[in-house]
This record gives sequence, C-alpha cells and structure tokens, in this order.
Amino acid sequence: MHRLEVALDERSYPIAIGRDALAQSDWIGVIRGKQVAVVTNETVGPLHLAKLTSALDAAGKSVTVVTLPDGEEYKTAETLDLIYSALLEARCDRKTTLVALGGGVVGDMTGFAAATYMRGVPFIQVPTTLLAQVDSSVGGKTGINHRLGKNMIGAFYQPRFVVADLATLDTLPARELSAGLAEVIKHGAIVDAGFLGWIEENIDALVARDAAALGHSVLRSCEIKSEVVAGDEFESGRRAILNFGHTFGHAVEAGLGYGVWLHGEAVGVGMVLAARLSQRLGYLDEAAVQRLTSIIGRAGLPTRAPEMPVKRWLNLMAVDKKAEGGEVRYILLRGLGNAVVEAVDEAIVAEVLREHAAA
Amino acid sequence: MHRLEVALDERSYPIAIGRDALAQSDWIGVIRGKQVAVVTNETVGPLHLAKLTSALDAAGKSVTVVTLPDGEEYKTAETLDLIYSALLEARCDRKTTLVALGGGVVGDMTGFAAATYMRGVPFIQVPTTLLAQVDSSVGGKTGINHRLGKNMIGAFYQPRFVVADLATLDTLPARELSAGLAEVIKHGAIVDAGFLGWIEENIDALVARDAAALGHSVLRSCEIKSEVVAGDEFESGRRAILNFGHTFGHAVEAGLGYGVWLHGEAVGVGMVLAARLSQRLGYLDEAAVQRLTSIIGRAGLPTRAPEMPVKRWLNLMAVDKKAEGGEVRYILLRGLGNAVVEAVDEAIVAEVLREHAAA
Repeated sequence: MHRLEVALDERSYPIAIGRDALAQSDWIGVIRGKQVAVVTNETVGPLHLAKLTSALDAAGKSVTVVTLPDGEEYKTAETLDLIYSALLEARCDRKTTLVALGGGVVGDMTGFAAATYMRGVPFIQVPTTLLAQVDSSVGGKTGINHRLGKNMIGAFYQPRFVVADLATLDTLPARELSAGLAEVIKHGAIVDAGFLGWIEENIDALVARDAAALGHSVLRSCEIKSEVVAGDEFESGRRAILNFGHTFGHAVEAGLGYGVWLHGEAVGVGMVLAARLSQRLGYLDEAAVQRLTSIIGRAGLPTRAPEMPVKRWLNLMAVDKKAEGGEVRYILLRGLGNAVVEAVDEAIVAEVLREHAAA
Repeated sequence: MHRLEVALDERSYPIAIGRDALAQSDWIGVIRGKQVAVVTNETVGPLHLAKLTSALDAAGKSVTVVTLPDGEEYKTAETLDLIYSALLEARCDRKTTLVALGGGVVGDMTGFAAATYMRGVPFIQVPTTLLAQVDSSVGGKTGINHRLGKNMIGAFYQPRFVVADLATLDTLPARELSAGLAEVIKHGAIVDAGFLGWIEENIDALVARDAAALGHSVLRSCEIKSEVVAGDEFESGRRAILNFGHTFGHAVEAGLGYGVWLHGEAVGVGMVLAARLSQRLGYLDEAAVQRLTSIIGRAGLPTRAPEMPVKRWLNLMAVDKKAEGGEVRYILLRGLGNAVVEAVDEAIVAEVLREHAAA
C-alpha cells in the first residue's frame, strides 16, 4: 500500500492508495466523534457500502447513510439539500464526520456539505472512480453546479483522510476508467514529461486495469497534484495549470448539457484543443500534438470535439470561472511537461476551433 | 470616527464606526478589482443605496446591485440563489467584491454568497441596523436558515472591511433599535460588568438614539466581541459565551416561526431565561437577575417568553447547533460580567421554564 501526505500546514492529510486500503489503512482513527454520516449514490452504494459500514460498525461508530441519485445532473442545490435534511433529521452535530463514498460528484457535494453544515464539519473521502482517485483526492475543491455554470458554487475545504481503495475500480465501467485516465495524462502533460512517457508505454496495461500500473498512476497523479496545490492552496496562481484541457472541456460539458459527455471525456478533447492552441502560438510542434492526441485516443477518449458554433464556444468559455478581470486565461503547453497560463486573443481561439472542426 | 482592528492573522480587517463613516473612511481602498456587486434589500436600498453607489461610482467601480426581499423568512437557499444568479448574469468573476448593505440577514447571506461564489470572493459589510453593527460586524459567521433549523448552513468567512455608519440608524424602526440593544447588553453581561453598568446608566440615552451613547455602545461591543472571537475564530471553545441568551432565543424564533419575533427580542427574553437558569444553579442572586431583567425591559425588549409546551422548548433546543455530542450546553452567568459554558440536566431546564411560565 502507498501512503502520501498532502502538506497544507494544519490542514495536511494522508492519502492511502492500494487494494483494500479501506480495510488496511488507519483512516477510521482520524474520526473524533461517535457519529458518522456516509454519503453515497444509488450505483456505488450497492457495490461498496457494506464494506465501509461494517468497518465503521466494528469501530463502534453510529452510522447514518444518505443515498443520492447518480449523475452529474444531480450535482445541484436540490441534491445538496437532501444531504442537509438527512443530517438534520439524524441530529448530526458539529462533531459528526461525513464520509463521501463515490466518484467526483459525490465527493464534491459531500465536501461542500461538510464545508457548510453548521459552518463546517470534518470529512473523509473514499473515491471509487479512477477520476476521483487521481483528481478529487487532492486540492480541496468542493461544490455544486449552478444552472448558469459548472462548479460555480463551492468552497476550498480539505478532507481529513483520503482512502483510494483500488479494489473499487474492479466494478468501474470502461468508459469511466478512460475518463479517469484523462486526468492522469493531464498530470504528465503539464509538469512531468517522464511520467507522460511512462503513461505512453503503459497505456494498454492501464486500460486493461493492471493493478501495479493503476497503483502507480494514482500515486504519481496525487503526488503531482499535491505538489502543485501545496504551493497555491486557494488557486491564486500556478495551480491554474491543473485546468489544462478544462476551459475547452467545460464548454463541451455545458454546451451539450451536463452528463452527456463524462467530465474526463470533455477534458480529453479539451487537451487536444489546448495542444492545438499551443501549437498555433508556436509553443508546441506537430509531433508533440500528435503524440499527446494519440495517448488520449489510446486511453479510450474522444479526440474530436462535438460540433458547436464558434460563438457558442467562446461564450461558454467566457463564463468559465477562469475568466478573470474580463479575459479568459488558457493553460498552454510550452513543450510536453511544461504548462503555462496566458490570456489569448479570442480571434486566435476561434481560428483553432474552426480548424479543428474542419479537419 | 472610531476605528478598530479585528486581529485574525492574515484575515484581520478594520471596522470604521461613526456618523458618515461611509463617506469618511477609506473602505473603498481595499477593493482590488473594478467590479463590485452590492447586495441590499427592498427596505434598506431606497434609504441608503444611493450614497453607497455614488461613492463607488466616484472611485471608478463598475457596480451591479442585487435587491432581495426583506425579512428573516427570506434567509433561505432560494434567496441565496437570487444572489448567485445575479452575479453569474453580470459575469462577476473571482475578483469581484461583494458589498452587503443592510441588517444581519443581508450580511449573513451576502457573506455566505461571498464565501461560496466561485469558492470565495472578497466582501465588505455595511451594516445598517444596530444589531448588525454590534453583532454581525465581528465574528465571520455567515449563512442561511434551513427549514429544519436556523443558521444550519453556513461558513466562517471574514469581511475585508466593516463600515458601521451611525447615520444609517436614524431611519431604523424603534423595535429594531431595541433588538440591537439586546446584543449590547449581552456583551456587558458576559464579560464586562463595568460596561453593563454604563449601559444601565445610559439606557434611556441609547433608546433616544443619543449619538455619543450609540457610538460608544457599538465600539465597546465590537471590541468585546473581537477579543472573544480572536481567541477562538472557529468557535471551538470560549467563543460560545457569545451565545448567551441564544439557546433559549433560537427556540423562541423557531417555535413561533422565524420573523414573528425579531432575533434581538428572542435574545432579550433568552437572556432572562438563561439568568434564571444561572440563579437556579446557584450562580446568580435574585438582585442580579432582576437588575439584568430591568435593563432588558428598559431597552424596550420583552422579558417574558411566549407560551410553548416545555417539551417543545427542549426539542427545539436539542436541535440547536450548540447541542454537541448529544448534550445541550448552556451559557450561564457566574455573576454579572462572567459567563461560563456548561451542560445542564434537562430536568432543571424544564423546571426553570415551568417557573417562568407560571410567574
């Protein structure tokens, strides 16, 4: 089992990574009170809830379970209220610990509920998708969508422990595994060309769920993300490079309606577009763009964007939260493994979108 | 003009107190970006908005105004969404500063919107009621009510500046002035017998809105509250003494339905009950209880609780957020000016409630 410490001063916390990390790591030890509320969804609950609650029961905890509907379209204020209401009905107090059992949606909503229930209660993440293990485990971003924009409402709030039990990936649909690989690829692309090379060599093993390959990809992703986050907890600067592929990706998700494409799929094609934009600015050569695009495709991800009018793309990206002080800032690659953040003239972005649509 | 610094490390901020503090203090200087969103309500807006927006206009800021319905019954997720929607429609970004112009409800909701909009934007408080000036100005408590409990959803989030312009109190209804005095009295009762004596001597001047008396009462209240808060920002211990009168008070508000009694009125009678409970435990003598009750009554506040079955009182208090680890903790006075926090046997609380109802 791997163990990693995310260093954020008094908000530091450990991540345990491994098959059966739920049974083998000491995560229950960080729970102070007796009362625990587990938040999961109707898909994940039947698969993994029993293992979790039996461990909590054995530790003498009193457990309330909140089961949410499954899907990005439920990452809303209405679903959040289901959590609040269940907590209040169970008389959960400020010492109650929330446990998120599920993918990114469950993690984001449970984290935000924890950040805001009685002005903040402790929470623990048990991510059950590859995407959540490599992405949501680190960074403390929590929140919900608003009808006018994705992730517009939220808080930075750190978990007390993250348990990435690789056994939960056995039951993950292939499409969701690929979606998780998008973020793994991203971590290599933005800061670690060596890791990107490793991914390229091991992409078939990853898609085939080779345990050792998955374990390394989760560990290295969490390491990279925590190094970036530790230097910029509240996303005022460098942390923005983690949004590589996300500006275009969010436009895909918002443009098609949330849930049509998976987040990771949108990020996959978003990285292709961001690489093309980098190339257009003279930062990346054709071979590098093709290499990155090939890795994304071999991971089972789309490399072609859905058809949308260019004006709609630009509008959707302008409302994105990275639009600061009126200009949209893009994450670009100055070579593979070296991301930078820059404002780009809208006309150039439009040109890249048109070329991609015509290719 | 008085100026006070609330010391919370990197979250420290100033409070300016005085007639025309809006025009005379340097609060606009802390606004970094160009975009400002002012949140107010339909009662306060017509009275004070023009003064605020003209100052912002003169400083070259681009101002969006969000006007909410007036009343505690609107301190809900639905009203909060009005703020989010307006911010998104105006394309407010992470550098936008929110300004709360109004009483506690506007301040709490605007602060919570600031804490959660795009995971946190700066905000400035311009409290226009005495209650908000002496209470919400310090402490960083923000949030909304839930149908199952008051202030159940929220965050600790500090403003960048608080402007307590005493001129805004000229238009305050008498009933609301009295509600603000409840918190002034509370500050004396919990830690400063000398200040309580000053209040007793000046209570008629305060009710008559004598400018010097109001100024001193706001300053001393903010000083006392900030001393207590600075030692315990996230309310893990001593800060709970600020809830003197509030455990009973919240039960009154929840029991009657929010908005029937003003918060300060409920706190007024809550202090009478908490003093009686202190007496019952041998901590306070009859003369001290009568003295405190008399000050509360002379401030124009109710000193008798509404009729509610004792079981309902106890249930309402058990759901209160100070019910931690299963037991309700009460703030009691061991002499005037010396508050302590203790769990109390439910049977004793029931007895005090019965005696009060029968008296």
